[in-house]
Formats: sequence, structure tokens, C-alpha cells
Amino acid sequence: MDQNCSYCQEGALLDAFGIKICELPMSKVILFKEQSHRGRVIVACKQHVDDITQLSEADRTAYLEDVNHVAEVLHRLYHPDKINFGAYGDTMHHLHFHLVPKYRDGFEWGGVFAMNPQQTFLEQDEYQQMIDEIRNAL
Amino acid sequence: MDQNCSYCQEGALLDAFGIKICELPMSKVILFKEQSHRGRVIVACKQHVDDITQLSEADRTAYLEDVNHVAEVLHRLYHPDKINFGAYGDTMHHLHFHLVPKYRDGFEWGGVFAMNPQQTFLEQDEYQQMIDEIRNAL
Repeated sequence: MDQNCSYCQEGALLDAFGIKICELPMSKVILFKEQSHRGRVIVACKQHVDDITQLSEADRTAYLEDVNHVAEVLHRLYHPDKINFGAYGDTMHHLHFHLVPKYRDGFEWGGVFAMNPQQTFLEQDEYQQMIDEIRNAL
Repeated sequence: MDQNCSYCQEGALLDAFGIKICELPMSKVILFKEQSHRGRVIVACKQHVDDITQLSEADRTAYLEDVNHVAEVLHRLYHPDKINFGAYGDTMHHLHFHLVPKYRDGFEWGGVFAMNPQQTFLEQDEYQQMIDEIRNAL
């Protein structure tokens, strides 16, 4: 638990870029407000660790199963042609993966995804619809 | 097994960007020739699947343990300040993670990493030294 960490504290820190959808056994699932990639979410570990090597094997497995469960739901709801998985966070220390659905010939297809392209934001009711459909599917 | 897949076929397809270090129970460990990030490797699943959702739970766990084992070795050998983990591969269909050690205030610190910055390549004996030290540590 870190006082300056978006994923530990939530509230205004998280609100800057995401909206919490729900919790899974080992993670918090967060809708990424920037939706250039429809369905982009973050799966943040419930533990404030730097990367997967700092988890016990059991916790690591549980965290991966959460990531997998969310990815399955994104495939089912949004039918991307690929999901990218990225864990960066050089300057913070809380394990989280970006799950980024990619669509053939769409935005950033064939390359890495930007940390935050700052291009596509939705209306509150559109966010809420996505949150509801993801939460219901999990 | 795919005839046009670098990770299935190895040989010239793999040689274009990497050098195989060794195999682990569920993966092939590959030194990325572009070494802007010292210690950058790829951990490719032995199975030709698109992403983690296509593996059985047991295989997924085994693959993650391989990724974790390699990450532990990178921490021990190269002491990065962070390791980034990224799975992209929009236009191919073989699950693999880039493990990218980042160093404080170094190249691409604080951001995502480029797919291939094409900047830093080593001499053959330098690659061999890294291959030996990673293989010995695994």
C-alpha cells in the first residue's frame, strides 16, 4: 500500500486516467479513459509490487488468471484481431498490465501502442455502458 | 507449428532479429539482437497460439513461470531499475513476450519501448557472452 499510488489509493489519482470496473480475486479491473483502442483496460494487481517476480507463485498464477479472464471477456465483447499486453510503469511501482485490443488496419495496428495517445475520450454514459458490459461478462 | 513463423521455424526467420539462448519447459528464450536495453530478450511460447487465452490453464501457468524465471535472471545479472513486459505481434500469431530491462534516466526511461529501435547491435563475441551468462543463470 503506497500513499501516492493510483492503484492503491484510487480516488482522484485513478480518476486522472481510469474508472474502476470491479475487483477480481487478485486484481482491480480499470477502464482506460483513453479509448483509441476500443475495450482498452488495465488489470492492476491488488498487491503493491514492482513486477511479477515479487509475487509468490500462487499469487502470480492467480494474477495471470485474472488477466486471462479479462482478455477472454474483451475477445468476446469486442472481437479484436489481437490483444496486446503491456506492463511498463518505470517510474511507479505497482504491477499492472494494459490490455489493448487491436483491430486490423485500425489505430496503431502492427506496432506497439502509445502509453496514452490522448485522442479518444467518451461521454460518461458511454463509459458507463462499457463498464456495465465488462462487469456483467466477468 | 507454422511454416512462416520465426518462433516455430527458427533458422533464418529468427536470425533476422534474435539468437536462441535455450529452451525452458514451455518456452524458447531468445536474445534480442537490438540491445539498446541491455539484457532485452524474448520469451516465446513453445505452442503456436495467438495469446494466453488459447492456452490451457496448466500451460499458461507454466509459460508464466518461464517468463518469471527469465525476469528473475535479468534482475540478477543486469540490475535494471524496471523490467517492461510486452506482448504485441498484431500481424503474426505466436505468443511471445518482450522482456525489456530499463535503467533509470536511460534510453526510453519512463515510456513504452519501441518494437525495434535499430540503434544498438553488438559484436558476435559480445552476444555470445550474454548468451552464456543468461543460459548459465537459468
